Formats: sequence, structure tokens, C-alpha cells
Amino acid sequence: MFHVLRTAKGSSARLGRLDTPHGAVETPAFVAVATRASVKGVESGVLCEIGVQMLIANAYHLHLRPGGETVAALGGLAGFSGWTGPTMTDSGGFQVFSLGAGMEHGVGKVASIFPGERLAPGGRRAQGGSLVRLSEEGVVFRSVLDGSPHVFTPESVIRLERQLGADVALVLDECTSPLHDRTYTRQAMERTHRWAERALTAFERTRGEGPNPGQLLFGIVQGGAFEDLRQESARTIGRMPFDGFAVGGSLGRSKEEMLRVLEWTLPLLPEGKARHLLGIGEIPDLFSAVRRGVDTFDCAAPTRVARNGTVFVRDVPGHRISLRNARFHNDPLPIDSSCDCPTCRSHSRAYLRHLCVTGELSYYRLATVHNLRFLVVLLQEIREAIGAGGLDDLERAWCELGQEKEKGDAGR
Amino acid sequence: MFHVLRTAKGSSARLGRLDTPHGAVETPAFVAVATRASVKGVESGVLCEIGVQMLIANAYHLHLRPGGETVAALGGLAGFSGWTGPTMTDSGGFQVFSLGAGMEHGVGKVASIFPGERLAPGGRRAQGGSLVRLSEEGVVFRSVLDGSPHVFTPESVIRLERQLGADVALVLDECTSPLHDRTYTRQAMERTHRWAERALTAFERTRGEGPNPGQLLFGIVQGGAFEDLRQESARTIGRMPFDGFAVGGSLGRSKEEMLRVLEWTLPLLPEGKARHLLGIGEIPDLFSAVRRGVDTFDCAAPTRVARNGTVFVRDVPGHRISLRNARFHNDPLPIDSSCDCPTCRSHSRAYLRHLCVTGELSYYRLATVHNLRFLVVLLQEIREAIGAGGLDDLERAWCELGQEKEKGDAGR
Repeated sequence: MFHVLRTAKGSSARLGRLDTPHGAVETPAFVAVATRASVKGVESGVLCEIGVQMLIANAYHLHLRPGGETVAALGGLAGFSGWTGPTMTDSGGFQVFSLGAGMEHGVGKVASIFPGERLAPGGRRAQGGSLVRLSEEGVVFRSVLDGSPHVFTPESVIRLERQLGADVALVLDECTSPLHDRTYTRQAMERTHRWAERALTAFERTRGEGPNPGQLLFGIVQGGAFEDLRQESARTIGRMPFDGFAVGGSLGRSKEEMLRVLEWTLPLLPEGKARHLLGIGEIPDLFSAVRRGVDTFDCAAPTRVARNGTVFVRDVPGHRISLRNARFHNDPLPIDSSCDCPTCRSHSRAYLRHLCVTGELSYYRLATVHNLRFLVVLLQEIREAIGAGGLDDLERAWCELGQEKEKGDAGR
Repeated sequence: MFHVLRTAKGSSARLGRLDTPHGAVETPAFVAVATRASVKGVESGVLCEIGVQMLIANAYHLHLRPGGETVAALGGLAGFSGWTGPTMTDSGGFQVFSLGAGMEHGVGKVASIFPGERLAPGGRRAQGGSLVRLSEEGVVFRSVLDGSPHVFTPESVIRLERQLGADVALVLDECTSPLHDRTYTRQAMERTHRWAERALTAFERTRGEGPNPGQLLFGIVQGGAFEDLRQESARTIGRMPFDGFAVGGSLGRSKEEMLRVLEWTLPLLPEGKARHLLGIGEIPDLFSAVRRGVDTFDCAAPTRVARNGTVFVRDVPGHRISLRNARFHNDPLPIDSSCDCPTCRSHSRAYLRHLCVTGELSYYRLATVHNLRFLVVLLQEIREAIGAGGLDDLERAWCELGQEKEKGDAGR
């Protein structure tokens, strides 16, 4: 259950607490991405040590490997992964569409939807074909691993998520792209609403089943970047008896559009329930979204960029440096001198750069631990600022730290 | 300095202590391989936690990247890597020969030596060419990374190892292969002896230089699998004022030959100095080598096989299982129920298998930590057994645990 503890003045930011069977999450909070029940490169013990509050795993990936039954047999996500804190599972709707269609044809978040289409033998059309077949009932897709056919319906995904036993399950939705027109986006949204009703019914029917009987269910608002659709979706999903809500789907083609989507959507959702923003996590975005009333975020970027060499630093332009840069070759400083993470306590930029450029496996963990700790601390500062009425000051201070500096000082 | 604390009855096993500027190593001890100043996938903090006593890095690899000067500028291996315990550096002789010649042509440990040969432009001969040119002075080789030319002489390697600042440096030697005949093996051995004298002189001349003034220098015994050559090399190198000795080069074509090499060599080395066995670390080998008077070992296999899915278990045939095996899909047990490592305390075989087969980066660390802890505990048991006069019993017990069991019980 979610509790709003304090609302900020001059913005819709709120301080809250999401109580789950595996503990409380103080919000606003960053939820670390653990797609296959592991934050890439990082063991669960250190996540706890650095203050990560919640992980989000992916039902689609865990369905393919190792399967919901295995996770359930091992005690659900908590028993399976050894991470005993709060968890969420994304339903996998996004992956069904993006991996089924998009990845094959390089269109990324764009799903090629051909209702009623029949797949040729092997599941691929000769050209530009989709591995996804969508109907009112649900979605048929082929595994990216071996081409085997799978069916996701609102009900089967609830069954799967009951097996996975995360503290917060997300319903199956259809994820549209910025390229879909209003007509298609409306159709998809209305189908998503009907799926949401079915998911709620299935969730009620299975209450008490699986390794985590106290599981919560969040609905997902869709509607693309269309104001009236977002409002309609927020009102419709918001009236349903979910434990919380996520904002999903296309958030437009720019940061400005994304913020407008949040402004259209969040005021129409019930104030007393949690709001999760799917897939957003840049530092300026965190401030903007928190101001508009978002309680939790997840985003793969902070951990993915770490693996590529980019680590967060409080007081450099853009709040980030690339350890691949030759200027760190002999740099004895930690990544961020103000950081208290295990990586910054033990290692220099020079050593981390060495591990990064030589492809040493230990690099991935060390960089990821730092970026996660950085966000944990930032969100903690944001919570304290909301509590003390100083969110504007905090955002201004961070903004100044991340500005381009005078020449000669740039990038230290 | 090395101290023999106790000698076993009925074998040449001994309990000892190697004192280094970064602490004491209780021997017999397994030295974990950290080729590029990092145990692959594992951060230094946990190595300390699980009782690893010493790391061995590689001068060849650290010379190519990031370079001895960088490591020296960061305070030597200890300051550079964040591992503050005892360290060794292998000179890189083995890599010069095996990576220069062997890797190009698939001959592994076999070095193609063509004294006086001139390299064609680009450093490669049209067919079967070597990237290594050997002379009395030293060895010219081309980097496996970019083909750039490098020279290693006994003196330049001492200079490099002074920069790296490990507690124990190993001299440059020429590593022959089991395919070399007696004549060539003798020539190479005699050159290695002359190089050892030059290394000692260079080491004396640079005393006090670099980040670790208390550095020790070990000589290397060569001589292939020829009894008279091994004895001659042990006597010759053993008379030189090294702080300790390593047994290197070809150890023959079988385990039996390897043990004979140890039996020819070790009794001729000064009793009061440490003996290191290069590149050996299978469980039965550890017992055999300890019995013959080896104090320290290093071996990449335990950490390499971990990354491939093979983890050590006390009471199964061969003391190992492959987590890739489908029978672990739902296995809720830890890798080894008797193990106290962080991996076994937190994770099931089912979860580790999931991470392994899906290629999750966190797998490598978890499996490696377990295999290292397993060896740390085994060597601790060996030390206790030597102290208590029970080495035979311990070896017998381990041997029985690792035997094939009755059908139906095999592999649990």
C-alpha cells in the first residue's frame, strides 16, 4: 500500500512510502533494472549495502528462461535471486512488441502490428515480417531465443507474475510507438483498457496463489502523445481498483512532449496511489518527473552506460565522464571524490579505465555499483529536499554543477 | 623472507610463512591469478573477505596496458589495484613466447624460436612465422594488441617489475616446451641461467627504487623434463642469492612426469627459501606438490573453469560439477552445502545456472568467488594437517570424497 507523507509546495512532488511484503520503499525512488533477476554484473548483497531499495525484473525474459515455474519453485523472485528486498515485474508487453517485431527490423520501440495476420512456417515473413500476432485475446509471439511460439494474454501474464511473485506486478499492455497514428493509438489504448479489466479479474481470482500472496498490481496508462487519449486512459485506468499506476507507452518524440504527457496524465490519477514512470532515468528527467508527481522510476540507462564506460560525477558537465577518455590514464582520483560507494572508496579512475579498456569483467560491477549509488544518493537528496521544502534549490544546485564550465576547467 | 615453521614426517611437505612488505603469506598457499591486476570478474574487497592471501599479476600484460610507469605512478600494484595484500608478478617470459609465437599458430605452449631471424615488415612471416626474436641479449616481440615492437631483457624486466612493485618479482626466463629436444632445452636453460645472473645484478643496482623497496626476487628453475638438466638448473639457480625459487617451463607430458620433475628439482633447492610452482592447481596436484615441498602455487584454471560453468564441490566425483547441466535447473541447494562463501550463503545452483546459461555478467563473479574460497579452505586444511601430522589422512579423505560413487548417487 502507498502512503503520501508530504506534498511539496509549488509543484506536485510528493514524499511517500510504498509498503510491500518485502519491505517499504521510500519515494521518490529509483528502481534498479534486473531484467533476468540480476542487475547486470552486480550481486544482490552489494545492492543492499549501497541503498538500492527496489529491483524491477522482466516477466517476458524470465518466462523464456528459466520459466515461471522454476522461479516459483525456488520461492519467487526473492528466494530465486537472493535479493530479499522489494521487487517489481514489468509484464513484458514492451518486449513482446519490441523484440518480436522491432529488433528483427531495426525499428526499435516501433511495433509492426498486423492483426489477424498468419505467420508463414518458421514464423517469419519473407520481408519486414513480424514475429508478433495480436488479437483481442492477447498476443502470439515467437521466442527471440529459439523461435518457439508463446502466447501472452492478460490472464496468462497474471499467472506468470503470480509465479514470479514480485511485490508489484504490472499488467500486460500494448505498447504503441510515436509512429502510430491517433486512430491506431486509440484502438490499442481501448484494447489495453479491456486487458486491464481482465488482468484485475484474473488477479482477484488468483489471490493468495504463488510465492508472494501480498503481491500488488499496477495498471498502465497508455494513449501515446495525444492529450485527449492520455486523459481518457488516465481516467479509465485510474478508476480501476489497482494498487498503483504506471505511465507507459510512447512518451512522445522529445523531453518536452514527455513532460506534457506527465502533466496530462498524473493529475487525473488517484492521489493516494503510487505512480511509476517506466523507462526514464536521466538526471534532469528525475527532477522534472518528481515535480509532476512521479513516485518511482526505472531505467536501464544508468547501468548500461556504466558498462560502456560512462560514470556519473556530480560536478562535471552533464554529470558524467567516459572512463575511455585518455585523460584518465594516470588519474589517481576516484570517479567522484564526494561519493561513498565501494568503488570510489577503493579504486582510482586510472585503474577503472585500465579495467574498462582491457575488457576486464570486474569493471562492469565496479562501474555499475558507482552509478547506482550515485542515483540512490540523488534520490535521497530529492526526498530530503521535498521534506524540507527545498526542491527548487536542490534542482538549481544540480543544474549548476552540471553546466559547462569556463574553458580550461571543462571536464576537470 | 621465508620461514619454515614445521616439516612433515614421511614427506617433504612443510608449513611456512612468507613475509612480504604487504603482509605474511601462510604456506602452503594458493596464489590467485590476476593477470591484468584484477582477478577476472572479482573486486579486491571480496578476495580479502574470503581469505585469498596473495595475487599474481603478469608483467607482460601490464607492460602492454597500462604500462609500468602508470602502475608506478599510482603507487605500484597495491595502490593501483586496491588489493593491499601480498602480490607477485610473473615476468612475462611465458607470454612473450606463447603469445608471440604460439597463439598465432595454434601451438600453445610451444615457442617457435629462430635466433637471429629478421622479421619481415609488419613482423609476420608469410607462413608459420614467429613474432618473437630471441638472442643472448633478450627477446624482441610484437604486441598481440597492435603489432608494436617491444624488447624484454633480464634488465628491462627488472626495471618493469620495480615499477609494478609486487612483493615478489620473478626473473625473465625462456620457457621451453615438451617438444624441444635435449640440445635446445640445454641451450635455453644455460641462457636462462645467464639471464638470472644479469637479473640479480640489475635487481641489486635498483634496490630501493620503485613503489615497493622491500620487493623480493625469485629465480626460476628450467631444464624441461630432463633429469640431469633439471638437477643442473636447480643447483645453479639454487646457488644464486635469490629470495626464493620458482619451478617453471615444461613439466613434461603427464602428471607423473611433472611429479618426477619436482622430485629431481626441489631437494636441490635451499631448504630455507620459498618454492613456487608456476601454473599448477588441480586438487590432486596440490596434494602431490605439497608433499614434494612446494610452498606456493598459482593457476588460472580454477577461475577460468568457474567462468565456463564448472564449480568445485567437496563430495562429488572429481570435486566439480558443471552448472550448465540441466539437472540443476530447479536445484535449490547451494553449490556446496559445506561452503561458507558469499555465493553459497546467498544463492542456489538453480539461480547460478540461470545466470550462467543466460550469460549474465554477475555469474562470473559469483562462481569465481566460490572456487577461490574452496581452494582457500582446502589449503587451510592442508596447513592444519601438516601441523598436526595428518596430511596422509586428509589426502585420503579428499580422494574418497572425489571418487565415483555407486550408481544412482553419482553426481548427486
